[in-house]
Amino acid sequence: MLNLLGTREPEIYGSTTLADIKKAVTARAKAVGLQVVFRQSNHEGELVNWVQEASKKASGVIINAAAYTHTSVALLDSLRALNKPIIEVHLSNPYQRERYRRHSYISEVATGVICGLRDNSYLLAVDALTKLIKAKSK
Amino acid sequence: MLNLLGTREPEIYGSTTLADIKKAVTARAKAVGLQVVFRQSNHEGELVNWVQEASKKASGVIINAAAYTHTSVALLDSLRALNKPIIEVHLSNPYQRERYRRHSYISEVATGVICGLRDNSYLLAVDALTKLIKAKSK
Amino acid sequence: MLNLLGTREPEIYGSTTLADIKKAVTARAKAVGLQVVFRQSNHEGELVNWVQEASKKASGVIINAAAYTHTSVALLDSLRALNKPIIEVHLSNPYQRERYRRHSYISEVATGVICGLRDNSYLLAVDALTKLIKAKSK
Amino acid sequence: MLNLLGTREPEIYGSTTLADIKKAVTARAKAVGLQVVFRQSNHEGELVNWVQEASKKASGVIINAAAYTHTSVALLDSLRALNKPIIEVHLSNPYQRERYRRHSYISEVATGVICGLRDNSYLLAVDALTKLIKAKSK
Amino acid sequence: MLNLLGTREPEIYGSTTLADIKKAVTARAKAVGLQVVFRQSNHEGELVNWVQEASKKASGVIINAAAYTHTSVALLDSLRALNKPIIEVHLSNPYQRERYRRHSYISEVATGVICGLRDNSYLLAVDALTKLIKAKSK
Amino acid sequence: MLNLLGTREPEIYGSTTLADIKKAVTARAKAVGLQVVFRQSNHEGELVNWVQEASKKASGVIINAAAYTHTSVALLDSLRALNKPIIEVHLSNPYQRERYRRHSYISEVATGVICGLRDNSYLLAVDALTKLIKAKSK
Amino acid sequence: MLNLLGTREPEIYGSTTLADIKKAVTARAKAVGLQVVFRQSNHEGELVNWVQEASKKASGVIINAAAYTHTSVALLDSLRALNKPIIEVHLSNPYQRERYRRHSYISEVATGVICGLRDNSYLLAVDALTKLIKAKSK
Amino acid sequence: MLNLLGTREPEIYGSTTLADIKKAVTARAKAVGLQVVFRQSNHEGELVNWVQEASKKASGVIINAAAYTHTSVALLDSLRALNKPIIEVHLSNPYQRERYRRHSYISEVATGVICGLRDNSYLLAVDALTKLIKAKSK
Amino acid sequence: MLNLLGTREPEIYGSTTLADIKKAVTARAKAVGLQVVFRQSNHEGELVNWVQEASKKASGVIINAAAYTHTSVALLDSLRALNKPIIEVHLSNPYQRERYRRHSYISEVATGVICGLRDNSYLLAVDALTKLIKAKSK
Amino acid sequence: MLNLLGTREPEIYGSTTLADIKKAVTARAKAVGLQVVFRQSNHEGELVNWVQEASKKASGVIINAAAYTHTSVALLDSLRALNKPIIEVHLSNPYQRERYRRHSYISEVATGVICGLRDNSYLLAVDALTKLIKAKSK
Amino acid sequence: MLNLLGTREPEIYGSTTLADIKKAVTARAKAVGLQVVFRQSNHEGELVNWVQEASKKASGVIINAAAYTHTSVALLDSLRALNKPIIEVHLSNPYQRERYRRHSYISEVATGVICGLRDNSYLLAVDALTKLIKAKSK
Amino acid sequence: MLNLLGTREPEIYGSTTLADIKKAVTARAKAVGLQVVFRQSNHEGELVNWVQEASKKASGVIINAAAYTHTSVALLDSLRALNKPIIEVHLSNPYQRERYRRHSYISEVATGVICGLRDNSYLLAVDALTKLIKAKSK
Repeated sequence: MLNLLGTREPEIYGSTTLADIKKAVTARAKAVGLQVVFRQSNHEGELVNWVQEASKKASGVIINAAAYTHTSVALLDSLRALNKPIIEVHLSNPYQRERYRRHSYISEVATGVICGLRDNSYLLAVDALTKLIKAKSK
Repeated sequence: MLNLLGTREPEIYGSTTLADIKKAVTARAKAVGLQVVFRQSNHEGELVNWVQEASKKASGVIINAAAYTHTSVALLDSLRALNKPIIEVHLSNPYQRERYRRHSYISEVATGVICGLRDNSYLLAVDALTKLIKAKSK
Repeated sequence: MLNLLGTREPEIYGSTTLADIKKAVTARAKAVGLQVVFRQSNHEGELVNWVQEASKKASGVIINAAAYTHTSVALLDSLRALNKPIIEVHLSNPYQRERYRRHSYISEVATGVICGLRDNSYLLAVDALTKLIKAKSK
Repeated sequence: MLNLLGTREPEIYGSTTLADIKKAVTARAKAVGLQVVFRQSNHEGELVNWVQEASKKASGVIINAAAYTHTSVALLDSLRALNKPIIEVHLSNPYQRERYRRHSYISEVATGVICGLRDNSYLLAVDALTKLIKAKSK
Repeated sequence: MLNLLGTREPEIYGSTTLADIKKAVTARAKAVGLQVVFRQSNHEGELVNWVQEASKKASGVIINAAAYTHTSVALLDSLRALNKPIIEVHLSNPYQRERYRRHSYISEVATGVICGLRDNSYLLAVDALTKLIKAKSK
Repeated sequence: MLNLLGTREPEIYGSTTLADIKKAVTARAKAVGLQVVFRQSNHEGELVNWVQEASKKASGVIINAAAYTHTSVALLDSLRALNKPIIEVHLSNPYQRERYRRHSYISEVATGVICGLRDNSYLLAVDALTKLIKAKSK
Repeated sequence: MLNLLGTREPEIYGSTTLADIKKAVTARAKAVGLQVVFRQSNHEGELVNWVQEASKKASGVIINAAAYTHTSVALLDSLRALNKPIIEVHLSNPYQRERYRRHSYISEVATGVICGLRDNSYLLAVDALTKLIKAKSK
Repeated sequence: MLNLLGTREPEIYGSTTLADIKKAVTARAKAVGLQVVFRQSNHEGELVNWVQEASKKASGVIINAAAYTHTSVALLDSLRALNKPIIEVHLSNPYQRERYRRHSYISEVATGVICGLRDNSYLLAVDALTKLIKAKSK
Repeated sequence: MLNLLGTREPEIYGSTTLADIKKAVTARAKAVGLQVVFRQSNHEGELVNWVQEASKKASGVIINAAAYTHTSVALLDSLRALNKPIIEVHLSNPYQRERYRRHSYISEVATGVICGLRDNSYLLAVDALTKLIKAKSK
Repeated sequence: MLNLLGTREPEIYGSTTLADIKKAVTARAKAVGLQVVFRQSNHEGELVNWVQEASKKASGVIINAAAYTHTSVALLDSLRALNKPIIEVHLSNPYQRERYRRHSYISEVATGVICGLRDNSYLLAVDALTKLIKAKSK
Repeated sequence: MLNLLGTREPEIYGSTTLADIKKAVTARAKAVGLQVVFRQSNHEGELVNWVQEASKKASGVIINAAAYTHTSVALLDSLRALNKPIIEVHLSNPYQRERYRRHSYISEVATGVICGLRDNSYLLAVDALTKLIKAKSK
Repeated sequence: MLNLLGTREPEIYGSTTLADIKKAVTARAKAVGLQVVFRQSNHEGELVNWVQEASKKASGVIINAAAYTHTSVALLDSLRALNKPIIEVHLSNPYQRERYRRHSYISEVATGVICGLRDNSYLLAVDALTKLIKAKSK
């Protein structure tokens, strides 16, 4: 099972598109034999709770922490305790936006980072995570 | 309808006074023909949720984000996606307090800022928002 | 009497509009029983002189120090010595412009700050100052 | 009554140990005649709510804000409004970890700070708080 | 045709492995109908020359600029003039190394960034670039 | 007509030489068919006034703001509102002096900058401005 | 034996009180079966000498380095070489004073830190050190 | 002749006292055989003009630049060109006020600095300048 | 002979225009009796080599170091050893671009700087250098 | 009695001159009815000891802390506890030397500062201190 | 064999002297039984290539990276991969020059650093490297 | 005679080894005809005293200031007044340790610096100093 967390980046996606990403991600995961739990919340604490849950139930985490990427030490701490592969994704390339978006707490603990490729960022993350999980289970 | 969000600034106001502000604001809004939704929460994520709701239901937002003014990129992102007039208010003048209160993420997206005028900050904000909403609806 | 100081923010307003603001401000002040002295200068020292005069003759000051907002310690010192209510106004929201416009020396001593609401910033300032003067004279 | 708040520092303690600390703290408090309310949450807003409650019901607060220590102005504001003795505790010594863990908003308002002594940090905090409460009630 | 530039990151890969990556990348590109030009140099100026060449001959560029990622404004300028999709790749996650590796000039102009996934970073980059090129040619 | 503003850089030129520059500049301007207004003041506000005047009467401005180069946001604002070609000149190369002379507010709005070439800086500026004015009037 | 070092923080304690602390500390140490060496000096080098001595004769060190907390790399180096439990104490909470008191070289090597609890800081330090020494000697 | 320049530091002295200082300074100067020109302005440019005049007519300058101490590169440049002894005076000790008052452009070129001694600062400055002028004229 | 070095600023000029500048510069140099060596490279080391050659063969250097302006201490060192007039040119005004383009190592050693005047920057540089060479040879 | 402390500033004065200053200072103090204790040490701790002694025996302190001016928080703390007038003196003007000499811990607690006037700095300090002591004893 | 790399520091040495150093170094190396490869280039990439070669053929490296000392992460990366003793040398003491010469990337990986001793820096480096190579081969 | 000063770097050397270095240094000095005074103290003031003594009795100084390297302006001032060759030595390479060890006040005045070569640093320093003393005495 793979746990997919995220806040919504409201300024970019409407609700329809979020469903689209979910569908595409679920399909791709299924194709490689993984089961996805797809979650979205605007609460930093909720995201932390889910990461803690994932440490018991998931084989890896794909996370788009949106604004919390830049401010949440709490999220960083929970991810550091996870001990599973973590892929950080972003729809846009944060480097090309405001200065305070250049620092990512998530990157300090992520195995890999994929950004700037819109919804394809998520699909590539599924591929990357799959490979990492398989390499681990050998 | 106008959406009035806020955390309480507990160090300044007791619960009675918060009710007072609500009453005064509601009265003033009524006088100019607007309907107010008055909300308060200590949860950053809750404030984000309300801003997202407001994008569908409100004509504008008056927001006193208190401490989150200085730390919440999440709130900033949701406000940036709002596309409605936003008035940032503060009871006190943050410039005259600690250094870290000088930076406001909210100000980056607020149409206008009114601060330092105690509860009158709110009433002037209602006047300002009214004018902006009317100018827009012409 | 209320003393209204300012430099012109030449990049935004032509001379006609400055006259318009003056007229509107004067009218609003009259309505609430105050007399306005409306002044504009490009000289930092002149603004300092007027603030010093105001300490003897005015009940309060509304000030748009434009560029001097960010550089004038002299203006700050004269305002600190004023001991009257001070409202800082700006036509635009300085937070959304260059980095060096985020720091305001005026804000360190202003009672309240109103910005981003174009010419309405001035009118709301008259309202706010009126209330402060009345509260004081009770 | 003494209010003991905290997030869990998931990277250090498993769930068993958290229960152990609770038991030890409760015992020690009982021995000195205090009643403990022991709470844990990953939500910044929840911690703020509890601090506000404590201002009505508790004689003092022991707080381990974990990651929020370094990012939460909201928590700082609620503690500043508390007007009761506050002991900040940490299991580890934050000075020996990443740079961003060196700054604590909590310390700005804490009466005392005890850190680096693992679970003994909590027990010493109970002793310290007891002494402060007794000194106050004389 | 896709142009794959890079310096070797000598501290991580021996010469055998570099050949391996080349082989894998070429195979994957072939599978999706692209032709790869695979190049490596320790000269900043050579990398700049190749980027300029690519502007005439390639449909996109995958670049691992290794140390020059953090120091080369010249490379940034040539990439900015490219007007083709650019994928920045890194074998490791630069965020988890020295402070001066956190800043990437390449990221300022890259369409997407993929890092931390060892040699898989390159293969995912081929997939990502393929998709971007196809989207463009529609 | 071309408007030539400046403070005197007293540490470098005596009064005789200032007259010399004026003569040389006037001659060169005449040769290319332009009329010069040559002005010098130690008052920041006066320089601002002249820039505002120039917006009505001049086709371009050559400005040596000396010390105000590094401190005057007011001058910057007036130049930004000018919408005419601006050439910033300096007798010396500010880069080779104190650190605080490296930042120029004028450069943010100047079309071109010419410095370090002593009195020849002014003559080259006349040539440059002439070319810009002619290009514009075509 | 436990070595208790310190400078006197002259601005807070008169000589009587210093003796009082010594008496209380000695009593508490005796109660738990430890012997105290209590020392005070205004010489940074003397404090370094004592730390070096302690490495041969003491089981642990309690240190209040007062002003040297913030400036002495020499003290830090000697403590780093100690390889015994170290408790850093302060009578006041340095976080609530000048900015330069926020950085502590001692904290980089201290096992634990206890501050802000006036003379009780010392007594809790004795308790904490006792526990650490006993845990070690098991 | 000695030239005494200054802005008034309005927050500290009323107009009477300024006259008092002038009287005391004039008397002291007379006693040591010097003639004083005592001037005050709120205009930075006026102060610059007076310094330039002083280079022709005065044997030295005592200057209290008040707020311009911290912001005026123009004043610094004119003083640097003076080539006469300069005594910088302040009524208060700027080090004990806001952070931005710690930097003095005047100090970079002043022969000596005397501050914190209220009106006695001026009298000691007259003594110091007298000695410097006499030493020079030998 | 005058040595004209440069990288190409690929984002602004196509290859045709570079030839145009060369032709115009050569013509202007010829008119004033100088011989030009016009060179372009993307290699920092090549630019350093040419500067070292110029120290034996040229009377002066005009240099547009493009991106290396901001990063090359090597170029700075070679220019410092040159002991000939140096004119730094830029087609655009670097002050109006990214922050890291505001610092120029070249400016530390350039006799004069001319920027923002497009291809005319080069022609004015020829005029300026001619004057400097003639002044020197007198 | 007045306590005159100092380190020697070895780079400026030989031993003869130090004696000279002592003689002149003693004479001047005698003339105004004060008794001087003149001390010099290279030990920071010794200076702290003397300041603590002075709090019992002296009416004021003149201090030239030389290099310790910029580094000694310990000296600052002892002076802050003194509660007597303090005059900080320097032979040279520290503002005109290295950057790290611009910050003075002593100035944070000194009543007045006199610098740049060579040995006359000391004599003016005696005058200033005398006046302060007399004002206090009234 | 020992590999001696360097750029020439053109501002200090003429070509003759470079040959002199080479001769002296070669002689000294011979005397201790080592063979030297002495190389100089202005190309950063060439230096990187040589370091990579050295990893196969040399027992150690002496490197004077001149300007690249302060800017080349590429050189740092190649040296980090070397796994041989490295001695960094400089003819002058970089600490006594411009601020940006204080940071050395080379020092992060050098075994030892020798600087400020002119050509003797090189000879001492040969001695030091010899000792390190012998210690290793035991 | 050569004066060898130092603090002990207690974290690296036990007392035996310090004696070893002394013996080796003395032997090497004897071989080249110099007499050594070898001293160690933890007191900054003592080191300053010794440097001042050395200015009368020694031909040069080798100094390992350990932690005071990074904090002692007093030591820097005494060394600046020395006017003899100074070799700064370190057993380890400070560049590879904490950030605050990168700045050396000693380096600002040292003729040469030798570090990272363990006890060989001292022996090479004797060689280097010998050469400098001989060159001077010619």
